[in-house]
Amino acid sequence: MSLTIILHVTTSYLNLNLNTSKNTTKVANFKVKLRTKPIYHCDPLLSVVSNNSAMHASAQPGQPAIRSSLIDPDGGALVDLVVPESKKASKALEAESLPKVNLTKVDLEWVHVISEGWASPLRGFMREDQYLQSLHFNSLRTQDGSVVNMSLPIVLAIDDETKERIGSSPIVGLLGPNGDLIGILSSIEIYKHNKEERIARTWGSTAPGLPYVEEAITPAGNWLIGGDLEVLEHIKYNDGLDHYRLSPQQLRKEFDRRQADAVFAFQLRNPVHNGHALLMNDTRRRLLEMGYKNPILLLHPLGGFTKPDDVPLDVRMEQHSKVLEDGVLDPETTIVGIFPSPMHYAGPTEVQWHAKARINAGANFYIVGRDPAGMGHPTEKRDLYDPDHGKKVLSMAPGLEKLNILPFRVAAYDNVEKKMAFFDPSRAKDFLFISGTKMRAFAKSGESPPDGFMCPGGWKVLVNYYESLQTEEASEQQAVLSA
Amino acid sequence: MSLTIILHVTTSYLNLNLNTSKNTTKVANFKVKLRTKPIYHCDPLLSVVSNNSAMHASAQPGQPAIRSSLIDPDGGALVDLVVPESKKASKALEAESLPKVNLTKVDLEWVHVISEGWASPLRGFMREDQYLQSLHFNSLRTQDGSVVNMSLPIVLAIDDETKERIGSSPIVGLLGPNGDLIGILSSIEIYKHNKEERIARTWGSTAPGLPYVEEAITPAGNWLIGGDLEVLEHIKYNDGLDHYRLSPQQLRKEFDRRQADAVFAFQLRNPVHNGHALLMNDTRRRLLEMGYKNPILLLHPLGGFTKPDDVPLDVRMEQHSKVLEDGVLDPETTIVGIFPSPMHYAGPTEVQWHAKARINAGANFYIVGRDPAGMGHPTEKRDLYDPDHGKKVLSMAPGLEKLNILPFRVAAYDNVEKKMAFFDPSRAKDFLFISGTKMRAFAKSGESPPDGFMCPGGWKVLVNYYESLQTEEASEQQAVLSA
Repeated sequence: MSLTIILHVTTSYLNLNLNTSKNTTKVANFKVKLRTKPIYHCDPLLSVVSNNSAMHASAQPGQPAIRSSLIDPDGGALVDLVVPESKKASKALEAESLPKVNLTKVDLEWVHVISEGWASPLRGFMREDQYLQSLHFNSLRTQDGSVVNMSLPIVLAIDDETKERIGSSPIVGLLGPNGDLIGILSSIEIYKHNKEERIARTWGSTAPGLPYVEEAITPAGNWLIGGDLEVLEHIKYNDGLDHYRLSPQQLRKEFDRRQADAVFAFQLRNPVHNGHALLMNDTRRRLLEMGYKNPILLLHPLGGFTKPDDVPLDVRMEQHSKVLEDGVLDPETTIVGIFPSPMHYAGPTEVQWHAKARINAGANFYIVGRDPAGMGHPTEKRDLYDPDHGKKVLSMAPGLEKLNILPFRVAAYDNVEKKMAFFDPSRAKDFLFISGTKMRAFAKSGESPPDGFMCPGGWKVLVNYYESLQTEEASEQQAVLSA
Repeated sequence: MSLTIILHVTTSYLNLNLNTSKNTTKVANFKVKLRTKPIYHCDPLLSVVSNNSAMHASAQPGQPAIRSSLIDPDGGALVDLVVPESKKASKALEAESLPKVNLTKVDLEWVHVISEGWASPLRGFMREDQYLQSLHFNSLRTQDGSVVNMSLPIVLAIDDETKERIGSSPIVGLLGPNGDLIGILSSIEIYKHNKEERIARTWGSTAPGLPYVEEAITPAGNWLIGGDLEVLEHIKYNDGLDHYRLSPQQLRKEFDRRQADAVFAFQLRNPVHNGHALLMNDTRRRLLEMGYKNPILLLHPLGGFTKPDDVPLDVRMEQHSKVLEDGVLDPETTIVGIFPSPMHYAGPTEVQWHAKARINAGANFYIVGRDPAGMGHPTEKRDLYDPDHGKKVLSMAPGLEKLNILPFRVAAYDNVEKKMAFFDPSRAKDFLFISGTKMRAFAKSGESPPDGFMCPGGWKVLVNYYESLQTEEASEQQAVLSA
């Protein structure tokens, strides 16, 4: 059984070595709050994931990329940039003498994404020609003339001082947030980081308060560095959740092992309520009706950067596990993995990235709902994006033609049937829409949502989380008062 | 001989009927300054254009679109939305009872552009699916699955009151700025005009002071109306320059008549100096070297909205005519026409539009220079766009693969040779770069630029123009002082 370490320490920027009975777990220099008191027991999906031990054992770096028969990765072959074990020592030695670039936490998440092939055929941080295509066309032309989707610029920013240090070196070493050597970027190209243009074209807004912008762009340097990436080993976070971080290669293998004839991906960054579950189960039913014999659900929570008021990853993973434990979703036909990308909250631009990455992971169906990757406008009283634009843009996006897009039907709480159900406009007054904000308000106040909104086990996870937040806030207030 | 009316009247927003010996010229309700005293004689390119009378005579509305052998229009056939003469009366009658939409001057320029097929295969103002593709992908997928370039949203904004008035009518009449019935928009779709998103994605900036935004977006309504366009007749401006407004159909016919085996287009919104001329003549030389026997230059000044400090269209046309009269460009191998589009100053996004429209006009080569469609950042001390991005984006743009892009070589004033020459970095100190701002400063002060910068006839046109502006300013100041 794997080990989950939960510390409750309010100091950010830790760099700890924690000795435990069996593992030495290095916690990276990440801006996270660790809880001392576990609010849940660990590794609840082990029963599901452990079915797949064959998959884990065989997914060694350097092995040839796997093609699932369901859908080809973009560019034809899955990119794998982990240096083979045999060359690791020499690469590490080579990197020692190179000028170094320091990665932020978000940069490292992108290294993770690129190195495992989620962004195939991208083989590194974007050079300027790729950046411009992404920014203007949301797609890249490959060498054979075909077009792949690429809606988010996947770039690495450096400051003037780092640029100076690199000088004319064609290659640099990459250091993780805790100073570890992560990998190498070669045949580099350094070009200007016009933040205003990048933000405007990616978000369709330059309003202050866009979470990714504030986290990863505003504080970043005025240069971008592109090049070919190699990493010394698979990126790990040692947060007790790494076993959920299945690579596209591992996922494809698992879909093949389960003999899936359809894989439908569900991207999420929120707890799963029974409306989501209804939708996923209904999708499976529809696929069976279409003649598929063994449709597999990829329940695929986003694991990278999210905004502070989103539910943290560890709590969400616990909540998802309860949904499976409680039988709301069927473990036999569901795979739960973590999608390592950071969140942009860039609506119609970002939903393309979410879908494209799942092609690379082997999903040939993608579920899209209302306002995917959207949020409220940071300075105006409206949604940042038209809630319908996401699915419209997705259905027309270059390079996504081979993916089957499954638009959501809207689910809401049916006050008559006392359960989540597809909204029926002919009796609109019977339905109650429970927004994320409303759900959080229920959980914070300890109030129960209507019966049937979420499975009791999942709901309890949320209540515990918000209680722990309140305890924390109270003790912080106490500390302020007594200071 | 056609008639040019030049009035010097400082009052804007005129609505005049001017009786002249032969014509009744209706001057539309445009925000223009008309000069009472001609600063140049009229129709100087008649000798060139009159060679083409056959072209003018045969370009009747309703005739089948013409395909030049050099390059196919986007979508395969040139769009022509002018109602055939035989149906004009019935269409006008039909329009009478329809709800009406009032067009601004810029809207009418777009009606002009769409109706003559510059934006082929677009057949009207964009519906939402086209708008979203343009905004996100700078391209449109056609019914046969092929992709055409479409980088600027070509949209028509209406306000709440107009939307209300339209109600559930599927069709509307379009009224020009002076109240004339211009055409009909049918199978309409009304959708939200998110100005912030449109501006951010089109310009890569939302800074205040973007000229097209201030002119045409900020004051516009909060809805966009798309649909199929028909116009009752070719759009005319009655400003003495209509004979320069050759449609794509007319241009294609003329290229065929001249038996062009290559057509290279030069987009401009500034006076032609000898550096431009060097470049155009050098391009012709290169095309001859490549084996083409009869390359024709399409000198194609933009005729729609430009920012206030740009040189006005009539002055530019006079200046261009001098360049041909003075023999700097060869009238035998040059066609001068006006490109009716308004200017966005949207850099890499707009240059694609400029190139795409010239495909439809029959050009198979397109010259692109430093910072095309660029300008200074409205609030920061820098260029709004990286000066190299325009040509990079153009060379990668979806739907423009069939167009040959010819990047500029930089020309500057060679102080040794006393003429404009291609910049030679090995003797950089011999070269003087004369910016548009510097050129205007010379012309305003009456000072001569270095010998060989511009042909004397062309330079005189500019000096006269700036003198007339100063006279005007002085009399305005006088009026203020004596008031």
